Amino acid sequence: MKLARRYRFSASHRLHAGGLGDDENRELYGKCNNPYGHGHNYVLDVVVAGPVDAASGRVTNPGRLDQYVRERIVAVYDHRDLNRDVPDFTTLVPTTENLAFAVQKRLANGWDAEFPGTALEMIRIEETPRNSFEVWRT
Amino acid sequence: MKLARRYRFSASHRLHAGGLGDDENRELYGKCNNPYGHGHNYVLDVVVAGPVDAASGRVTNPGRLDQYVRERIVAVYDHRDLNRDVPDFTTLVPTTENLAFAVQKRLANGWDAEFPGTALEMIRIEETPRNSFEVWRT
Amino acid sequence: MKLARRYRFSASHRLHAGGLGDDENRELYGKCNNPYGHGHNYVLDVVVAGPVDAASGRVTNPGRLDQYVRERIVAVYDHRDLNRDVPDFTTLVPTTENLAFAVQKRLANGWDAEFPGTALEMIRIEETPRNSFEVWRT
Amino acid sequence: MKLARRYRFSASHRLHAGGLGDDENRELYGKCNNPYGHGHNYVLDVVVAGPVDAASGRVTNPGRLDQYVRERIVAVYDHRDLNRDVPDFTTLVPTTENLAFAVQKRLANGWDAEFPGTALEMIRIEETPRNSFEVWRT
Amino acid sequence: MKLARRYRFSASHRLHAGGLGDDENRELYGKCNNPYGHGHNYVLDVVVAGPVDAASGRVTNPGRLDQYVRERIVAVYDHRDLNRDVPDFTTLVPTTENLAFAVQKRLANGWDAEFPGTALEMIRIEETPRNSFEVWRT
Amino acid sequence: MKLARRYRFSASHRLHAGGLGDDENRELYGKCNNPYGHGHNYVLDVVVAGPVDAASGRVTNPGRLDQYVRERIVAVYDHRDLNRDVPDFTTLVPTTENLAFAVQKRLANGWDAEFPGTALEMIRIEETPRNSFEVWRT
Repeated sequence: MKLARRYRFSASHRLHAGGLGDDENRELYGKCNNPYGHGHNYVLDVVVAGPVDAASGRVTNPGRLDQYVRERIVAVYDHRDLNRDVPDFTTLVPTTENLAFAVQKRLANGWDAEFPGTALEMIRIEETPRNSFEVWRT
Repeated sequence: MKLARRYRFSASHRLHAGGLGDDENRELYGKCNNPYGHGHNYVLDVVVAGPVDAASGRVTNPGRLDQYVRERIVAVYDHRDLNRDVPDFTTLVPTTENLAFAVQKRLANGWDAEFPGTALEMIRIEETPRNSFEVWRT
Repeated sequence: MKLARRYRFSASHRLHAGGLGDDENRELYGKCNNPYGHGHNYVLDVVVAGPVDAASGRVTNPGRLDQYVRERIVAVYDHRDLNRDVPDFTTLVPTTENLAFAVQKRLANGWDAEFPGTALEMIRIEETPRNSFEVWRT
Repeated sequence: MKLARRYRFSASHRLHAGGLGDDENRELYGKCNNPYGHGHNYVLDVVVAGPVDAASGRVTNPGRLDQYVRERIVAVYDHRDLNRDVPDFTTLVPTTENLAFAVQKRLANGWDAEFPGTALEMIRIEETPRNSFEVWRT
Repeated sequence: MKLARRYRFSASHRLHAGGLGDDENRELYGKCNNPYGHGHNYVLDVVVAGPVDAASGRVTNPGRLDQYVRERIVAVYDHRDLNRDVPDFTTLVPTTENLAFAVQKRLANGWDAEFPGTALEMIRIEETPRNSFEVWRT
Repeated sequence: MKLARRYRFSASHRLHAGGLGDDENRELYGKCNNPYGHGHNYVLDVVVAGPVDAASGRVTNPGRLDQYVRERIVAVYDHRDLNRDVPDFTTLVPTTENLAFAVQKRLANGWDAEFPGTALEMIRIEETPRNSFEVWRT
């Protein structure tokens, strides 16, 4: 059984790789390299796999999951500038690929203690309705 | 090749585990334990896997699939109270996890005779836009 | 300037008019008359009209609007059975038309004191993606 | 006859009123006042009213409308920081109310010459799926 | 009180004005003028205005409305080629503007006898998610 | 890491298998066999799997992917009649199953040269919101 829950956060970012020159950055990232940045309404789906508990009929407690994701993700990223507000991107370019890895790492770290018997199967981030990214557990 | 078809039904339910006391139920299910229940517009995706028939260019006949799902699922659950109208939940708590298992069982039972050469790959139920559940074939 | 904000609540209901016989009710409401009820994920849009304040650049404070709607509507209807939990429907049939009037009345009563200079222009309730209802201010 | 066409742009902004102190700004705008800003995927609907031309069967040429909106709006706001990249918000706070007025002004100015016989009936901006704003022609 | 119900139909069309030359048609309609046509999943919203009946709590009987719209619209347009299958477009170009007028006319004709005391307030057709058209009652 | 990008095209088709008689075709395809065809707004999701490049923070260049898909798919199918405009369906019935295979083949052919180090993991086509098809890489 897999269950998915959806969260949202709004953030700004600018794509600019520190190791590359201005021209290279402009060619690589196009308008995503505009100097003052831009932003998105990100959609995050968190997918949990596990057996259904016979007594409760549930894989996990959804309220507890919400609290966990809100503390570790929404409180950190929502209404923030990814480049300047979030330590994950001090040296890392905040592409949505890197954002997806950062979210996965923040959720995976401590998961087993909080949600024993379940797995953080996958996380998916939608940057725009045309554009999404998935990280599966390895 | 996998194909997915979407169905909808509206139903009410109350989450209350018979083996637990009232306080435990309230803590476990929160507002989902409210005594008179509440309801949802459920969305059901049925995913079928199989080869494409060379003559018809189809995995299966979609009209026949619709009839099968409507008879076995929509006619049973739509505009019903899951706790009191549906025998699946006489002793089982109608969490969406248990509902997903019940739907999968109702569809899998008899599938091979009706749709030979194909597999009921997965069913997915969305309880709200934030909340969905998948059962894959084993 | 008009602004719209969206809220959601899940509730169950049964359509049965007290003044009519069982057969008439069944003919009038069809499967919505099923004895144990069913439920929906309701979507509520609240539309406010007013001038934009020059200092704040806003029609109204969205946080205050959220609090107002959550206290008066979401807290009353969410995860409830409209027929048995909500006094609005002791004698009134909880069709979505009547629900829309009840919501509008709950919001309009006290609006001017809380949001002076603005008007509760319209409320819209979606019962299913196929089915919605609007009440405009008179 | 009214026709509506939809456009999208992604931008960042920070809500901070120059005439108010830091504490007032924080109270007024909450997390939208965070110093480094955040961002959104904005959705813009442009609604045009007019008679249907008997020869073409159309209110207006949709390709010409797209070009007009892309030059005047999308090229100016997309992948930009509203506060620092767009002259509209040098002194004006980039709330979505003010953004809606700015968009309407940019489109209305020159409309009659470009689309004679039609009216720019309304523009609507969605900041998030929960939150939208309309400006009607006066 | 206004209520809206949603219907869907899939159809093909080609935009080509009989009174104009081939070059003019190509310039006017662009790829919509391609000789063999193309198609859409049309979405139709039918908006009805009227008082709420005190006994039933409804503006109108939704089942009767569905039957009316399905007979007059869906049965005529669904899975059809608008140019060659539907008499409305023997001489009229099947732009969505003209389709909207044709739908409105088919629904308005006989409305008062079938739904006395109510008005066919508006119909809206969505050709694609970016593109929609409204006809209001006059 | 998997990334998905979404594209759209509108096309018409008629389902009619050359090797079967008229009655068989009518029974097999129902209204999809109507002689003059009908159409859809197709949605195409292209899913790419691969490692994230450390320098750019990306799996692939999204602009290059867009160009590739637009040249090979959108330019070929958009605003076309699948039966008469597209060579893929000269002898093949344009069911969405066959369309999905054709799209996958057009994208896979030349993929490795254009996007080395990544895989065309899956393509998914949605014919209507109720109906979708997936082809996974083998």
